[in-house]
Amino acid sequence: MYRPEIKVLDCTIRDGGLINKWQFSDELVRETYKAVCKAGIDYMEIGYKASTDMFDPKEYGKWRFCKEEDVRQVLDGLELKAKLACMVDIGRVREEDILPVEESVFDLFRVACYVKDVDKGIALANHIMSKGYEVTLNLMAVSTNMEKDIDEALEQINATEIPCVYLVDSFGSLYCEDITFLTKKYIDALPGKTIGIHCHNNCQLAFGNTVQAIIDGANMLDASVYGIGRGAGNCTLELLVGFLKNPKYHLRPILKLIEEYFVPLREEIEWGYIIPMMVTGVLNEHPRSAMALRAGPDKDKYAEFYDSMTLQEIVE
Amino acid sequence: MYRPEIKVLDCTIRDGGLINKWQFSDELVRETYKAVCKAGIDYMEIGYKASTDMFDPKEYGKWRFCKEEDVRQVLDGLELKAKLACMVDIGRVREEDILPVEESVFDLFRVACYVKDVDKGIALANHIMSKGYEVTLNLMAVSTNMEKDIDEALEQINATEIPCVYLVDSFGSLYCEDITFLTKKYIDALPGKTIGIHCHNNCQLAFGNTVQAIIDGANMLDASVYGIGRGAGNCTLELLVGFLKNPKYHLRPILKLIEEYFVPLREEIEWGYIIPMMVTGVLNEHPRSAMALRAGPDKDKYAEFYDSMTLQEIVE
Repeated sequence: MYRPEIKVLDCTIRDGGLINKWQFSDELVRETYKAVCKAGIDYMEIGYKASTDMFDPKEYGKWRFCKEEDVRQVLDGLELKAKLACMVDIGRVREEDILPVEESVFDLFRVACYVKDVDKGIALANHIMSKGYEVTLNLMAVSTNMEKDIDEALEQINATEIPCVYLVDSFGSLYCEDITFLTKKYIDALPGKTIGIHCHNNCQLAFGNTVQAIIDGANMLDASVYGIGRGAGNCTLELLVGFLKNPKYHLRPILKLIEEYFVPLREEIEWGYIIPMMVTGVLNEHPRSAMALRAGPDKDKYAEFYDSMTLQEIVE
Repeated sequence: MYRPEIKVLDCTIRDGGLINKWQFSDELVRETYKAVCKAGIDYMEIGYKASTDMFDPKEYGKWRFCKEEDVRQVLDGLELKAKLACMVDIGRVREEDILPVEESVFDLFRVACYVKDVDKGIALANHIMSKGYEVTLNLMAVSTNMEKDIDEALEQINATEIPCVYLVDSFGSLYCEDITFLTKKYIDALPGKTIGIHCHNNCQLAFGNTVQAIIDGANMLDASVYGIGRGAGNCTLELLVGFLKNPKYHLRPILKLIEEYFVPLREEIEWGYIIPMMVTGVLNEHPRSAMALRAGPDKDKYAEFYDSMTLQEIVE
């Protein structure tokens, strides 16, 4: 039995690009889109929309910017079966960078912000909606917020026309009872709006927590191919599709894509269950310290890393 | 807040040995035991008890047999803080191989059997209890059984003195609602007995399902260092210890052990999230076909493997 309201969004290129500064080959992006379409996935988020004067295009690949012409060129000749999405961070995009929807290849913009910046997030979401797009608001890192601040943010969002709000476990530190508590909170505070779920895999709970959120009523589900994403990565698309019962979804194209592109890519760049990322997840910390460790000579000094993370806590 | 009834059993050497025929160095086994003790873990399962005339000692390492003298030699001079356990399969051990508890280094025997063999499992468990040991009965692969057969097995076990019965997700195919359904069934059918949980990680749910089982009332929890175990492996001990709130458990010794012994071991032998193991998990199949694929030249032909597993189903 399946729930017809459920939609899946593939965030492979957008979240995976946080590892390699979006330096993916055009071929990999095109083949990912083709596989996502064949698998029946509803949306593909192809990167971040940002102004080229805010990031250096020599350092960052094209999916840091998501120019319309780049998307059209890489997907040239393909039927755009999966809707195209991109993410925007507040303060990193100019309003004039966003075309009216009729002139754009994109269908959906996802606005990412912290709870403290919810007013700015709402303003940007409203602007994007006025240009005709679908919009979601993704409240990041709520595992670090006091409940009263989350409640206040949700109350503000409830007063808007934003149709979809995401529960985001940025640090991969939530477990099933937390997911249930927060999903119910979002549903109760945002009647009529769709709730989305975006999980990180630091504690090997990204898929399990996504399933829990489905049970609790979330209908917009993020996942990435082979779980690629910053740090420990995301809920894997192949597990999610293997779990969902809707016959429109197909597992085989994703397995083929992993075999041909993502197993080789995993030899070049690192994501997944890596102990320092697990430590930051358990401690409800941003993975940046774990990523810094993995980039240095002490990458496998797990106990020492744990000491550094926990002693700091005692001192503070 | 923690539940004082909860006990953790480390099955690193026993379940990990299914990958390498128990060919671990004495040093690794000794260091694992030391770390398990330092971490405050309640039990360590060091292998299978089996008769040497049933398996060739040239092919299988000593933890396939768990001779008393081998255990004493490898752990020589250590305080036996963590209780020692071993597993027995019905039909693979002679009753005379099991010493009276007063003469043995072991505290706990775990009897593994399928639902169809529950009578044999009960008989062996009764014999072992008569020698003075703690005993558990581990009902394997219940994801493949009809409910009426599980109910009948539980009814038979309920009539015995066996104090602990395990829910075992042998194929890593159960998700949280299945765990809740089965844990409640075991608890209802076995009043007064402890329920144990042993999960496999094919769908990255071993830790999440163990947490779910804790919520549902399971008090005997299996895990292994870095998740080592057949196929996709087990619930990782480090995640479980990171999650449990009982101050007697400590994470650091396990991280140090992983850093020094299990990261190098993972370069030699394979376990974890590997797509063919995920496919058998999704399909609720024994991982043997996935393990055979990984041992051959087509180890990364995931889509073709999926075809072979699903076409077979259509034909039957």
